Amino acid sequence: MATVKKRAKAALELCGGADKDYTDQIVKVAKALLKMNNVLILSHRSPDGDTLGCAYALCRGMRSLGKKAAVKCADEIPGKYSFMYEGMEQQTFEPEHFVTVDIAGAHLLGSIADEYEKKIDVCIDHHFRNSIEAPVKLVDTDASATAELIWLILNAMGVKMDKEMASCLFAAISTDTGCFKYSNVKPRTHLIAVELMKYGVDCAGINFKLIDEVSQAQLELKKQALSTLEYFCNNQCAIVTVTSEMIQQTGASPEDLDGISNIPRSISGVECGITMRQINDGWKISVRSSEKVNASDLCGKFGGGGHKAAAGCKFSESYEETKKQLVDAVSEILK
Amino acid sequence: MATVKKRAKAALELCGGADKDYTDQIVKVAKALLKMNNVLILSHRSPDGDTLGCAYALCRGMRSLGKKAAVKCADEIPGKYSFMYEGMEQQTFEPEHFVTVDIAGAHLLGSIADEYEKKIDVCIDHHFRNSIEAPVKLVDTDASATAELIWLILNAMGVKMDKEMASCLFAAISTDTGCFKYSNVKPRTHLIAVELMKYGVDCAGINFKLIDEVSQAQLELKKQALSTLEYFCNNQCAIVTVTSEMIQQTGASPEDLDGISNIPRSISGVECGITMRQINDGWKISVRSSEKVNASDLCGKFGGGGHKAAAGCKFSESYEETKKQLVDAVSEILK
Repeated sequence: MATVKKRAKAALELCGGADKDYTDQIVKVAKALLKMNNVLILSHRSPDGDTLGCAYALCRGMRSLGKKAAVKCADEIPGKYSFMYEGMEQQTFEPEHFVTVDIAGAHLLGSIADEYEKKIDVCIDHHFRNSIEAPVKLVDTDASATAELIWLILNAMGVKMDKEMASCLFAAISTDTGCFKYSNVKPRTHLIAVELMKYGVDCAGINFKLIDEVSQAQLELKKQALSTLEYFCNNQCAIVTVTSEMIQQTGASPEDLDGISNIPRSISGVECGITMRQINDGWKISVRSSEKVNASDLCGKFGGGGHKAAAGCKFSESYEETKKQLVDAVSEILK
Repeated sequence: MATVKKRAKAALELCGGADKDYTDQIVKVAKALLKMNNVLILSHRSPDGDTLGCAYALCRGMRSLGKKAAVKCADEIPGKYSFMYEGMEQQTFEPEHFVTVDIAGAHLLGSIADEYEKKIDVCIDHHFRNSIEAPVKLVDTDASATAELIWLILNAMGVKMDKEMASCLFAAISTDTGCFKYSNVKPRTHLIAVELMKYGVDCAGINFKLIDEVSQAQLELKKQALSTLEYFCNNQCAIVTVTSEMIQQTGASPEDLDGISNIPRSISGVECGITMRQINDGWKISVRSSEKVNASDLCGKFGGGGHKAAAGCKFSESYEETKKQLVDAVSEILK
């Protein structure tokens, strides 16, 4: 299998960073996958473009080598991702091997966690603190999207890339980088995009569908949420609220909430943007922040957590009390 | 000057497409610029990230070679672009040469058109139907942004790229491609981004400032505009309205209108998105469309024009009459 190594090196050289250890990791995963047949590829619950793009690209790649493979996800796949599996045949087989893609922990398998968490053979991911237990693991937190790793692995496996696989991988990268907008974008990200474009991917079409396109319900929800916008702390903190009534009235789905939590932080001068979303027993809080406010620390005060610039927590207090506690905490940080 | 050619070829090879004719064009512009001193670089009126990024990158590049150079624009430069000229010294000199960047026609110089339109020595641009008269012209409509051309020219000139120039060029490319989102993005676009990233450009910071960040007035205007959203033609046509009163009341500036005209077209199922903006003597119409509707043809019926997917026209009729005429015309196309 010396050719696997050669192909891995070639792919890594194309996009930078072919150090020995890293090449060996890619080779290990590729070899493990090449030995498998009847493979079930698992995506995380509330699936997004990265977990699905990785799953369908890998599934198509395995099938192109004559293997049986399928994708499974606990939750329904939003219609905008249908291009990823269009034209794929239904295959019936008894799964023998299990691969997770873009899943940081077994609980993120959702309702199928109990069934599969002890069976995972290969875990491919880019999240910090990945807690999945599997004999073969590749977790590279430098990858902007798990799809960067799938691209390397497919190349190492000797899979002949095609437009469908390339479209899945491009969609995955576009999703996780906000279309090359965020700080997770590395030269490698652009270089892999260049390679994928060679297969005739409709990049602009995918970007429109995944990033710009909104449903009527989503836009109506956004409008209603905007009408709740309030400023605090000398306009350095902004809060928008999404009530259960708004969601019910607009008929918005959970994915229609995407994007709203980025609004308050995007306002000039706002260091801490908060979205308060009503849930059964209180409020689910999303915080987005600049470098002046550590969102993870802020949410940590209320039993939540996350990253420096994006974190969350929950409150079971009333609306006014929740808002007061949050604003007081932000004031304390910004004073 | 054989080295100019060598450098041009090398730059073109880095980003693909070093055919002889094209290399010669780059060489011609680079040689012309290398011979000049006391250069005034002109940006278009209502300046955007591409015209400004090109102007300041070229100005910095000329200065790095010991030349005197400055940038001139008829209109005020929005604050978000201040990073482009920060730290640059004021230079006093009598301009001897004039270069336009990203300007399709002399009238787009705005209020300084009369002063400079007959003096232009070099014109560098990427717009169709560029009508500027200049002895040295490089117009490449394949370039996603004029900045791609400036990058090639600076390389051919032997300018030592630095973080400041690279930041200007990255901002320019990000502006004109919607951060690598639109169909004008080519492999070359990504490859030049990779080269620019080598100089430590704060890509994510620039993208946030130029793409995501909104003013309070802009968000308020968006909210008010959204409240006017109406659907026609079985939801395939959507119209939003921006009245003079909204602009006055929110204190929005012309650049705060950016982005609103993309909203109606971005709604799922909408083939033709129309924005009606009140002006002194009627309505300024922006149309964004899918492949089912030719925006240029539609606007052409009312004396306007533009591109297939984005066009505009003006009406001096009443609000209701304008809307009726537009909806009738769209119905005709979609029937």
